[in-house]
Amino acid sequence: MKATWIWYPGDFEVWLGNKFNNRRTERGAMFPPFWKQDSHWPTVVFTHEVDLEQEEVVAVWTEGEFNFMLDGKLFSEMASPETIWYEESDYHEGHRIRVPIGRHTLTFKVWNQTSPPALFVDGKTIKSSSQWLVTYEDKIWIDEQGVAHGSGVYVPAGSWNFNDAGDTLTRYSLRWRDKLPVNQEKAEKGMLYDFGRESFGHLDFRKPAGSGTVHIYYGESREEALDKEHCETLDRVHISNGLVHRNPGSKAFRYVYVETTGNANFLLAMYEEYAPFSPERSGSFRCSDDELNKIWEVSAYTLELTTQEFFMDGIKRDRWVWSGDAIQSYLMNYYLHFDTECVKRTIRQLRGKDPVTAHVNTIMDYTFYWFKSIADYYEYTGDTVFIRELWPKMVSLMDYCLSRLNTDGMVEGQADDWIFIDWVDFPMHKRGTLCFEQLLLAKALDTMSYCAVRFSHTESERYARLSADLLAKTKAVFWSPEAHAYLHAIEDGQLNPQITKFPNMFAILYDFASEQEKKQIQENVLLNADIPAITTPYMRFYELEALCQMGQQAEVLPQMKAYWGGMLREGATTFWEKYNPAEHGTEHLAMYGRPYGKSLCHAWGASPLYIIGRYFLGVKPTKPGYQEYEVRPVLGGLEWMEGEVPTPFGKIRVKVAGEAAELYGSNVVGEASELYGNSNDTTVCNASKRCNILTVQVFSDGGKGTLILGNQRINIPANKEITINL
Amino acid sequence: MKATWIWYPGDFEVWLGNKFNNRRTERGAMFPPFWKQDSHWPTVVFTHEVDLEQEEVVAVWTEGEFNFMLDGKLFSEMASPETIWYEESDYHEGHRIRVPIGRHTLTFKVWNQTSPPALFVDGKTIKSSSQWLVTYEDKIWIDEQGVAHGSGVYVPAGSWNFNDAGDTLTRYSLRWRDKLPVNQEKAEKGMLYDFGRESFGHLDFRKPAGSGTVHIYYGESREEALDKEHCETLDRVHISNGLVHRNPGSKAFRYVYVETTGNANFLLAMYEEYAPFSPERSGSFRCSDDELNKIWEVSAYTLELTTQEFFMDGIKRDRWVWSGDAIQSYLMNYYLHFDTECVKRTIRQLRGKDPVTAHVNTIMDYTFYWFKSIADYYEYTGDTVFIRELWPKMVSLMDYCLSRLNTDGMVEGQADDWIFIDWVDFPMHKRGTLCFEQLLLAKALDTMSYCAVRFSHTESERYARLSADLLAKTKAVFWSPEAHAYLHAIEDGQLNPQITKFPNMFAILYDFASEQEKKQIQENVLLNADIPAITTPYMRFYELEALCQMGQQAEVLPQMKAYWGGMLREGATTFWEKYNPAEHGTEHLAMYGRPYGKSLCHAWGASPLYIIGRYFLGVKPTKPGYQEYEVRPVLGGLEWMEGEVPTPFGKIRVKVAGEAAELYGSNVVGEASELYGNSNDTTVCNASKRCNILTVQVFSDGGKGTLILGNQRINIPANKEITINL
Repeated sequence: MKATWIWYPGDFEVWLGNKFNNRRTERGAMFPPFWKQDSHWPTVVFTHEVDLEQEEVVAVWTEGEFNFMLDGKLFSEMASPETIWYEESDYHEGHRIRVPIGRHTLTFKVWNQTSPPALFVDGKTIKSSSQWLVTYEDKIWIDEQGVAHGSGVYVPAGSWNFNDAGDTLTRYSLRWRDKLPVNQEKAEKGMLYDFGRESFGHLDFRKPAGSGTVHIYYGESREEALDKEHCETLDRVHISNGLVHRNPGSKAFRYVYVETTGNANFLLAMYEEYAPFSPERSGSFRCSDDELNKIWEVSAYTLELTTQEFFMDGIKRDRWVWSGDAIQSYLMNYYLHFDTECVKRTIRQLRGKDPVTAHVNTIMDYTFYWFKSIADYYEYTGDTVFIRELWPKMVSLMDYCLSRLNTDGMVEGQADDWIFIDWVDFPMHKRGTLCFEQLLLAKALDTMSYCAVRFSHTESERYARLSADLLAKTKAVFWSPEAHAYLHAIEDGQLNPQITKFPNMFAILYDFASEQEKKQIQENVLLNADIPAITTPYMRFYELEALCQMGQQAEVLPQMKAYWGGMLREGATTFWEKYNPAEHGTEHLAMYGRPYGKSLCHAWGASPLYIIGRYFLGVKPTKPGYQEYEVRPVLGGLEWMEGEVPTPFGKIRVKVAGEAAELYGSNVVGEASELYGNSNDTTVCNASKRCNILTVQVFSDGGKGTLILGNQRINIPANKEITINL
Repeated sequence: MKATWIWYPGDFEVWLGNKFNNRRTERGAMFPPFWKQDSHWPTVVFTHEVDLEQEEVVAVWTEGEFNFMLDGKLFSEMASPETIWYEESDYHEGHRIRVPIGRHTLTFKVWNQTSPPALFVDGKTIKSSSQWLVTYEDKIWIDEQGVAHGSGVYVPAGSWNFNDAGDTLTRYSLRWRDKLPVNQEKAEKGMLYDFGRESFGHLDFRKPAGSGTVHIYYGESREEALDKEHCETLDRVHISNGLVHRNPGSKAFRYVYVETTGNANFLLAMYEEYAPFSPERSGSFRCSDDELNKIWEVSAYTLELTTQEFFMDGIKRDRWVWSGDAIQSYLMNYYLHFDTECVKRTIRQLRGKDPVTAHVNTIMDYTFYWFKSIADYYEYTGDTVFIRELWPKMVSLMDYCLSRLNTDGMVEGQADDWIFIDWVDFPMHKRGTLCFEQLLLAKALDTMSYCAVRFSHTESERYARLSADLLAKTKAVFWSPEAHAYLHAIEDGQLNPQITKFPNMFAILYDFASEQEKKQIQENVLLNADIPAITTPYMRFYELEALCQMGQQAEVLPQMKAYWGGMLREGATTFWEKYNPAEHGTEHLAMYGRPYGKSLCHAWGASPLYIIGRYFLGVKPTKPGYQEYEVRPVLGGLEWMEGEVPTPFGKIRVKVAGEAAELYGSNVVGEASELYGNSNDTTVCNASKRCNILTVQVFSDGGKGTLILGNQRINIPANKEITINL
């Protein structure tokens, strides 16, 4: 085991989150979020028990000032130089502590106002790790007889991968790689550079010469870069006698328009900033439809660009962490890089600290998604340690929600709540009592119940009951037996007859409707052209997922090709915040009343990653952390497809080929066409018809897989490829 | 009006409090508190409305990164150099902003992780001040049409006296003055310096020469300084070739023992660190008893040493801010320097931030004193602005208290509560249900009611009812009709027959007993030698105050002389944390199982300041902020006394002379002896006996004073000296 830097769990994220969110700029002005930003605990206490067979000298580094206690007794360099001293060695300068033979308790109190107090202890056997405990108030007081009393609440220390004394958390940054423009041309009074596709990073001025000021205008589009008055981001750099002053910060752009004063001269390049990932551990997809392949690739690139210190929404304008966006990124990520550390960081960052003074991002729905994202995380990872860490903050956030119910026991937007639901182009009620919000709260309460029961919390039943009660109430109020659909809103005591897709698709997704009702919803709402269409990839995520849950992959495939393919045909190199196929030309760039307000690289644009992984390749855990999982491939009109899905145990590979026309729906029945990998002799396909050849490979050491083909269930053994010929 | 630095109220105190509390050392090791330390809000928004008759260019400085909005529109140097730009002038470099004619809203968002985000704006008419508003979450979000919605809660900005752009809050420090030792002598292997009396500051090595290490051992006593193994504080300084490395930090000491290695050489001096005060605005006292004069002077010096950034407990060992200590400092301070800013700072610092995770300083009684101190502050200052600022934090702290009542609706120490009451030398219950704690909580609830009613809070009645209920319950349970006293504790369901002075004296102080019961308490408890004596100045404060409230100044005077005079006879130059007259020699230095653990300069030692000012000079407000006040002088055995009491309006001067023997009690009747100042012709003394001459001077511009002499009530006009001859 290596020693690693440790801190109070969540504090790294709070601190890094402020740096991250406040890096956003708007036309040269910094632009922090409008919700509460928190701070790390400035003073924390780390403690650890050891039992040594021989004396050990350990090296200690901290970020912050610290003191050290051995078995409750304080030592200092001045008073006890034989126990604690400062040393400059070849390895590193730092403190050394002599710990004697036997059972001892080591305690370090560290204070750091500027960044999270952090500790790195490295000895032969004594090494700081997440096994150490930490508290922000040890409550150790000494009575008049000198007797110590303590009642602090200790939790396991936070850590990540800072495994070297010099590799401190405050030095953490994304990685950089070099990138050159693919084209440059004279435009107006300056030069327009094209970096080929949407990129994220900071410009680099190479071979600088002369003196002058460089005015920089960024654009996700060519139009934006050339529009000095309206481009969303800009920069200014001074070059004097060949020296570059004030490097610009990281920005999102494909195009850069530059005007230079004086005789300043340079070659423009950039450093792309990116979060590293392992291709060997990543998901993949390829199929018979080239457009869908391109959609998958651009989705993957979009998610990679928006996966930074945290999962963010858009890389140009917003650059903040948003809960509604993040929950989708997490789900996509489970099918692309399975970066669970980034999921945890983002969940922690979004929650911040108590007291709760507003909904997450101030948005009511975003609070509810925050809960749901924890259930999802647990489903994909099986990580109870994280659930345990979060539990107190889950409780206090839910207390906040429950304290704001209206007299009917329903949640309702108060003056300081933002009700988001979706960006829509039609008139939609966002005030009053909304069916959509009740369903999301009911699901959040389900998550509370689901997590509580893991630790035998008696609270589990209470939350389950609250959820069931709310759901029953919601059904009684909003379900229209005439319309066979959920109505949208009560406003001023009146049930509004408006029907939108939003509550109805969540009733399917969250299994809050009977099978019959689901079919009614599908027919009367989801596939009803009279119901206003959704125009953001954000809600199209859920819409397509609901259809897939109803076995409508054959409906979803052409919709994906039309919608995401539509963006590609508009020249997208990453997917957008909003796409209304009815708009044209530069209309696609505008939003928020600003000509380039729309984000052209938005995480929620990448949802085909999830839809394809979970509902076409058909891979999902059925017990937490893929202990058990199913593979339920559906071609949905494709001739063939193959792909990989990352799991905690490794990858699940799926390859399906067959006659497209006969593979619609969830019944995989068709012509055999290909044999792939080793044959499997333990499982026999009993289908009466001659079938396609399906190849399922499982590389996990553990995990109990089931391949589901129509009504057949076939065991997937670990580390052994099975081939099913239907 | 001058511009001043502004910040989120309370954040300066939170930040400064961490610096302050963490400066404590124990034998060279840093020693932060064991309770939660909080942080300032890292990102805050300042806003202010102006209405300009002409365009104004204003200068802007911040501590932190900032952005600027005019009427909700963001400006940056890069995009709008005509509106906001950076300028280096003769005066100061900083940003300049052009604000056009008319009505405008200025908004600054400032981010600073390290210290409180702060703003200084200085224009012809636009100047940052406590009139500006601030929030830590503006909740301003922009919908898809670009329309802004905001729901942040704004409060008046915090400020103090940082009235120059360069005079930032982070540069704040105590003032320094030079001090030389009065004696030095060779001792053991080094040199012992005596600075004449207890002092606070840091050593200065003058005319340094040679090279070597200086080992420094501090002592409040000679014994402590010479005891290298047990002295509470020490330091180490390196001198190399006449250069001093690593100056020692501030320490408390009278003696310094120094051992030097090598040929290092220097003259030792110190810089005293002190909080400035205005002698013209300070209280004073002089009387016929030289010992009492000395007690008053040493009390004043003790309070001055313990008045630093905050009111602290002891200057050597503790150096933290403690609520139980502070409430006494506040009360003394109202009779010495009337430093209301330090009172507010200390109250804010003690409260810290939500969420409440422990009692103030983890001590239950200290939470209750915190509330009471706010009622006191209001009584002496009449400052409703501060009450309004604190109110939300008063509510959340009281919610915490009320959430921890036992099933009988009484407060009871839980595992993580420290029950302090007092340091006692006899066995005393500190667990279970304590009468003392109920009385303190009842008073805290009274304070809630008292403050709530100022703003017509309907909550006032609720708190009053809670207090009355608790009090009734407490009386029913703890008042013993047989003992005519409050019993101390219920433990494990059993009422314990122990009687202590603690609940009984608070029943008098807080007026929680009938006049008859008070007399019974006085006789059976306070003046009963069988009840264990109090051995800390801390609780002697309340004991003597209770006796004074019962008109027992003639009993109190010899007790003060015996107790505080006793410390002086032991050589005290400041008053101590604890004094047990039964102890001898170096026993007086020990505490907490450590030979020099006792603090010899402890704020709560200075209570004669308060007792003399309020109960001998007899000056106290009868309406908030001395709008109305009374002077009820009681010589209590003194032949004469004169003194000054500071008020918000100026000073009240009182001079009384008379025959000591006849002036006991609250009836001031005696021989005339002196005429002082102008005669007063508006008020005639109707006393039947020939009296002392009393001179009462009032310099306040406002305030309605009443001089009370026995059963006579005489109006004191403002700005006019009255002389009453009795």
